[in-house]
Amino acid sequence: MHSVVDLATGEKTYTLRRAVAADVRPIVALLAADQLGATREDPDGGDWTAYERAFAAIDADPAHLLLAVTTSPGGEVVGTMQLSFLPGLARRGATRAQIEAVRVHERHRGGGLGAAMISWAVGEARRRGCALVQLTSDKRRSDAHRFYTRLGFTAGHEGFKLAL
Amino acid sequence: MHSVVDLATGEKTYTLRRAVAADVRPIVALLAADQLGATREDPDGGDWTAYERAFAAIDADPAHLLLAVTTSPGGEVVGTMQLSFLPGLARRGATRAQIEAVRVHERHRGGGLGAAMISWAVGEARRRGCALVQLTSDKRRSDAHRFYTRLGFTAGHEGFKLAL
Repeated sequence: MHSVVDLATGEKTYTLRRAVAADVRPIVALLAADQLGATREDPDGGDWTAYERAFAAIDADPAHLLLAVTTSPGGEVVGTMQLSFLPGLARRGATRAQIEAVRVHERHRGGGLGAAMISWAVGEARRRGCALVQLTSDKRRSDAHRFYTRLGFTAGHEGFKLAL
Repeated sequence: MHSVVDLATGEKTYTLRRAVAADVRPIVALLAADQLGATREDPDGGDWTAYERAFAAIDADPAHLLLAVTTSPGGEVVGTMQLSFLPGLARRGATRAQIEAVRVHERHRGGGLGAAMISWAVGEARRRGCALVQLTSDKRRSDAHRFYTRLGFTAGHEGFKLAL
């Protein structure tokens, strides 16, 4: 990707870029602000090194792209998502782009920022030669399901998880 | 993983190991033999280099583990799956293990081989410190859904895909 991308919505233009270490705290704050994520994150607790270790692993591997969306270059982080590019033999050796951990700050919802982020991700997947973009969404998030369906995704799969 | 693992089922003991280049053709044959995969694969066509390129990408990255299950050490490939280990910030910096492209040859179904493969994958995810194992399964595969539910997985997510 280019180092900084303009994400234009109807109302305003945001900035999308690869996340850096200083973005980890505001990104975790976005994850924790989410209704379903609240109990799963620990933004104020003693577990901070786990987040930093995870960031280092993501950042070291070109197969992963953790993204920060800000209100302007140098502005506040108000959106995030992770893109991973996964090789596989299925579908004639297709590389899949997988989207995880999409969050938009509640004050910046409803203006098309989420759609602009996902559209950018789909375009980036295309530029990298992926044959498929995939993601899972908690069955309780019916608004998200309408959103992804509107963007052309099909909910043709069950998403199974097993916590260890 | 150890270089070769015994997978004991009630009836017999299979061998599980990291796939090598010579396994690509039998693995693609397993993918193509599948009802839903038949139209997506091209095991006899001119697209062979795409599979070989995909295998090289999987094999070069320690985050991915393509597995071959054989009837004995040196025996016929009758099962396959891919495990990918994905770092992420969510869930306190949890690494996820993702399972893709699980196939068992039809002559070797019903004897517990699939369950032994998934149980091994869950154990390997645990050994690598993952907090979560995830996979998606086509909504038309109701047998597979019962199978994963029996193994402790929860279908709490919708699996969205967008073909490019």
